[in-house]
Amino acid sequence: MNIRLKPTPIEFWYEFGSNYSYLSVMRIEQAAAARDIPVIWQPFLLGPIFQKLGWTNSPFVLNPDKGDYVWADMVRECAKHGLPWTRPTTFPRSALLPARVALLGLGQDWLPAYSRRIMEINFVEDRDIDDAEVVASALEGLGLPAAELLEQARSDAHKQRLREQGERAVARRLFGAPTFFVGDEMFWGNDRLDDALNRCAHAV
Amino acid sequence: MNIRLKPTPIEFWYEFGSNYSYLSVMRIEQAAAARDIPVIWQPFLLGPIFQKLGWTNSPFVLNPDKGDYVWADMVRECAKHGLPWTRPTTFPRSALLPARVALLGLGQDWLPAYSRRIMEINFVEDRDIDDAEVVASALEGLGLPAAELLEQARSDAHKQRLREQGERAVARRLFGAPTFFVGDEMFWGNDRLDDALNRCAHAV
Repeated sequence: MNIRLKPTPIEFWYEFGSNYSYLSVMRIEQAAAARDIPVIWQPFLLGPIFQKLGWTNSPFVLNPDKGDYVWADMVRECAKHGLPWTRPTTFPRSALLPARVALLGLGQDWLPAYSRRIMEINFVEDRDIDDAEVVASALEGLGLPAAELLEQARSDAHKQRLREQGERAVARRLFGAPTFFVGDEMFWGNDRLDDALNRCAHAV
Repeated sequence: MNIRLKPTPIEFWYEFGSNYSYLSVMRIEQAAAARDIPVIWQPFLLGPIFQKLGWTNSPFVLNPDKGDYVWADMVRECAKHGLPWTRPTTFPRSALLPARVALLGLGQDWLPAYSRRIMEINFVEDRDIDDAEVVASALEGLGLPAAELLEQARSDAHKQRLREQGERAVARRLFGAPTFFVGDEMFWGNDRLDDALNRCAHAV
């Protein structure tokens, strides 16, 4: 008898201001679908995590040697994955409103396409993303009720929900993005996406 | 006419206390030889680089969430590359004497085997490496004149040479290890070794 285990879902934590999250946001849906692996999209904010570490900014800004390296690395990584790339003139971009809206999409069909669109605005079009008009236009482009979603996103109850998402990230000991979980096992960084998917497919 | 470019050498900067350097030290010679790529081994000390960044220790110690993740990642990475692995009970281990001796081997045939042996002592046998008897025994195991090399390694002129190696690392804007250079192009981390070798072979 041939027993085939069902793939384990991959949990995908990402932040719209993070350039390495950009790579995974653009790649993950297709890579996971090819192996029947469900993706649980988990948008969150990295800022509170960095503040907890005592960092006032992205490590790519605080450490200029590493920062300059990262921009060269991004050119190569985007070429490797066939993705367009523009180095953002503002980095890291604040992503509060787009993250609040993304959290409304938890478990919804539109979250992956919305997330890719916000990432394109940041890392291909080099435009601000923490802007109501920009987010509304992204939502409208997907045929979604922008005004209604923005109103929900700005409610106190929903702001609290995003803070709770941040607390979950801390409880799960995230220290960067993108981060993947397969069950309780953590895989950190776009470089580990394929390893995480292999684990989901019980291939390793 | 078929023009075949000669492979570009890969310059390999590593530190004996660094667990991700361990992976590259064990892999690089075989991977490079398979493609006729010369390897220029460049041992150095990471401590002064970290101090310059204001860090009093390895980021894997300063950030315990990241640290615990790294040990899980090392188990997976060693399995992936077929390498033995023991989590060192002391981390990071001081590597001053083994680095001084390694620098004597710059351009010498024995440097790769010596480097692998020191890495094994740290990351497989879980023993101190900054110890004259341990280093002497590693050298003797390779048929090298241990007493003579240790005396040279401890001379003031040679200590100064290691400091100058550190200054070269700063001048080339290294911020971690392992780091590879193909000409002036930097590749950081064991995860980028294959990309660096592809560049050497003019494949990308």
